[in-house]
Amino acid sequence: MDAEQFREFGKAAVDYIADYYETIRDRPVLSNVEPGYLGDLLPKDPPQSGESWRDVLEDVDRIIMPGITHWHSPHFHAYYPTAQSFPSVVGELMSAGFGVVGLSWIASPAMTELEVVMMNWLGRMLGLPEQFLNCSEGPGGGVIQGSASESTYIGLLAAKDKKVRELMETNPSLTEAEIKGKLVAYSSDQSNSSVEKAGLLGSMKMRLLPTNSEGQLVGAALQKALDEDKRAGLIPCYVVANIGTTPTCAFDNLEELGPVCNKENIWLHIDAAYAGSAFICPEYRHLMKGAEMADSFNFNPHKWLLVNFDCSAMWVRDAKYLVEAFNVERIYLKDQHKGLAPEYRHWQIALGRRFRALKLWFVLRIYGVEGLQKHIRGQIALAEYLSDLVKSDNRFELCTCSMGLVTFRLKGEDSLTEKLLEDISKKKELFLVAGHMNHKLVVRYAICSRLTEKRDVDFSWRQIIETAEQIIPTPKKSLTKSDKQIHPVLNINCINPNLEKSK
Amino acid sequence: MDAEQFREFGKAAVDYIADYYETIRDRPVLSNVEPGYLGDLLPKDPPQSGESWRDVLEDVDRIIMPGITHWHSPHFHAYYPTAQSFPSVVGELMSAGFGVVGLSWIASPAMTELEVVMMNWLGRMLGLPEQFLNCSEGPGGGVIQGSASESTYIGLLAAKDKKVRELMETNPSLTEAEIKGKLVAYSSDQSNSSVEKAGLLGSMKMRLLPTNSEGQLVGAALQKALDEDKRAGLIPCYVVANIGTTPTCAFDNLEELGPVCNKENIWLHIDAAYAGSAFICPEYRHLMKGAEMADSFNFNPHKWLLVNFDCSAMWVRDAKYLVEAFNVERIYLKDQHKGLAPEYRHWQIALGRRFRALKLWFVLRIYGVEGLQKHIRGQIALAEYLSDLVKSDNRFELCTCSMGLVTFRLKGEDSLTEKLLEDISKKKELFLVAGHMNHKLVVRYAICSRLTEKRDVDFSWRQIIETAEQIIPTPKKSLTKSDKQIHPVLNINCINPNLEKSK
Repeated sequence: MDAEQFREFGKAAVDYIADYYETIRDRPVLSNVEPGYLGDLLPKDPPQSGESWRDVLEDVDRIIMPGITHWHSPHFHAYYPTAQSFPSVVGELMSAGFGVVGLSWIASPAMTELEVVMMNWLGRMLGLPEQFLNCSEGPGGGVIQGSASESTYIGLLAAKDKKVRELMETNPSLTEAEIKGKLVAYSSDQSNSSVEKAGLLGSMKMRLLPTNSEGQLVGAALQKALDEDKRAGLIPCYVVANIGTTPTCAFDNLEELGPVCNKENIWLHIDAAYAGSAFICPEYRHLMKGAEMADSFNFNPHKWLLVNFDCSAMWVRDAKYLVEAFNVERIYLKDQHKGLAPEYRHWQIALGRRFRALKLWFVLRIYGVEGLQKHIRGQIALAEYLSDLVKSDNRFELCTCSMGLVTFRLKGEDSLTEKLLEDISKKKELFLVAGHMNHKLVVRYAICSRLTEKRDVDFSWRQIIETAEQIIPTPKKSLTKSDKQIHPVLNINCINPNLEKSK
Repeated sequence: MDAEQFREFGKAAVDYIADYYETIRDRPVLSNVEPGYLGDLLPKDPPQSGESWRDVLEDVDRIIMPGITHWHSPHFHAYYPTAQSFPSVVGELMSAGFGVVGLSWIASPAMTELEVVMMNWLGRMLGLPEQFLNCSEGPGGGVIQGSASESTYIGLLAAKDKKVRELMETNPSLTEAEIKGKLVAYSSDQSNSSVEKAGLLGSMKMRLLPTNSEGQLVGAALQKALDEDKRAGLIPCYVVANIGTTPTCAFDNLEELGPVCNKENIWLHIDAAYAGSAFICPEYRHLMKGAEMADSFNFNPHKWLLVNFDCSAMWVRDAKYLVEAFNVERIYLKDQHKGLAPEYRHWQIALGRRFRALKLWFVLRIYGVEGLQKHIRGQIALAEYLSDLVKSDNRFELCTCSMGLVTFRLKGEDSLTEKLLEDISKKKELFLVAGHMNHKLVVRYAICSRLTEKRDVDFSWRQIIETAEQIIPTPKKSLTKSDKQIHPVLNINCINPNLEKSK
């Protein structure tokens, strides 16, 4: 394919994507295919001779699209959001177009340097403690990782390496294997599966500590576990605090956990994967008070900040601990710029890296801080709107409402809520998943798509109560009145109407 | 930004990329910027209000492009190639456009299923042993990882978990920590830095064994190391065989290593990151004889098969060992399709995954097997052409020529070759890096860009001998005659001229 054909194919693909978003509201959010559907539609081997791009694009529509779960449908409310925006898509396009791999500064200076500046921009937008920024005097800095899973794991590996070095110096009688066998990590029982996986992959015992009734890990629970473990001869090494848990978006108490970790010389990692984006709005920053006591901080612009997956922002208070844990030099990677610009390969697992700072730059500039704040505030308002609807119906119990996530259940046995979820799933018009709150089954309803509006929340609620009626047939309340009273301002039609028009 | 503005911006970006490739030959391959250049050109904070996409695109040209090292310039000969092709760029664009995250089958069935089929297509194209394929009867299968670094590391983690489980069952007196402290991994002293990094991150001693004078690891060297370690009470666990080493593209002897690993019950991982792509040409498959004895096999279509980074293909003989090592379940990830379609999140480090199979599908279809074979054969022919040029000049010593990689040096002290590389780098018209071969410094010259033609190799050679002349001023030979005699067929102008025109 030459450049001229690429112009045709690329532009046809741009149109296909634009058309897709213009029709996404009308598509059932969940796919209707059965496992194995695609194997039957494709040949067993690739073609010997090349085919036309038009045939390929037609097949995308014919056989791929039916197997897509529409994450950006306004009716997608499962998990947490994955971000998508047009500026970000173009950023990915250009990154692929340049096709550079940032295995060192010289391998494309702009790639390392834009990442440095973008991590500063982001850190300042969030009001992060200065010590984490590349632009600070100290040894801190930020880097783009692939996912929060990776960041949690990288934090664990760095913490382990640091602890082993320290103990081998202070206790020369201990062997490396003895130390490693005694290390313990801590997080809460509300943590994402990736936290447990980090322990599993990093061969470190991961204790998931009990939380309070709000799903938060507090200082006393951590201190108790540390004391138990130290008495048993174990070595506390790593704590993952959740700033926005996966089940209910609860916030661990950093102001209590921080001093415990600092006193005990334990690496504190903050996993703010989803909720971290909210800190671009100053009114939410109180939720990260205590972050200055952490050793690493991570959130995913690819979740809630309109930057396409993958773009996970990680900062460390002292980059030395990453480099010491990850650095393996070779002559073919030698260049003259060490120390003047970070060599990010020593901050991550893989050697190669994509030019991910580009899409971040596009999003931050084309939306601007205000556009992104409007997005976050709009989604939180929609979640509050749903929570009011839930409260207005006495068959339901509102469990939590935090940021863009609402959890609720049908009053009574878990089996009722389970049936509700099952029946909704069958219709494929809403995508919701289950969660647990205080040992009870709940529906997790997250505002995910940037396209979700008040009318979509109303659509959800109608689906939910119509389905509930089949399970507990009691007369439903009229919604029209309450919703008008409670949310007079919620007739927003897009994230940032002015921006959508003007840019 | 709405869909209409995206159409404009996206198409402008497509044109920008097409223009870039139409002018790439004329750009100096190496960037001229100094470390820190970009920080001075950008504001300290993101804009409060959104900006126009036109301003952003202009800035890409004004401040990013000068800091790009042109990996796809026909004059880029450093490292190994990173792949780029227009079908692949459109694949990335569409993947970002759909913006789905494959954390489970239901999260987008097409994403998992296309990956299954593509890994079968690829495996069959390479002539891989059937046991590795998803479509085989057995428990084997393939998955797309981010990089060879990741694959090597994942193999190590799976091997470690398998060995610990086995030993804890057969030797209940051993603790997990004792076993882990005794595990040893092996590779050769020619391995990529990522192999050593896998040992470092996975807390497993990594022994880099001596190779023969051709840079190959052979069975006797491995057996000797295993015997030593077993005598010392250690537990051999993992071997990484290089099929195409980074310094010289040497091939370890799989027919010798395989039986040793099988007999000793050691996980054998094959790292064919670069050279694996050549196995789509049957004439090179003899170099992977013995692969049927391996537990895992990895190569990077993102290196030499025209699929953009990241797309690293990994197969395992028994996927159970990945799932056992990596599986951490949670209720919000529960779905009904387990067993019917692979849940790839248990085959990798992170939870989330991009839709990378799409670009692979685009490339395989639009190039076809023959188009890709022509690409591989064309690049090997160009490397052979350069090696003949080197041989024709008696100031130079040809060290190796394997696949698309040639290594050579100026006869005499290393300082001469070092000076040669330094002086060439200063001109920024060629990008070459240093390597070592039998403790001597060599120039590594890889055919990287899909745009490199015979005239570009001639250009390189002229630069090399002109620079060499400043160092060892002896009369140069006439090149015109020998090149015409040796390579009558090398007047190819693109990978696949027919394909370029017709598709």
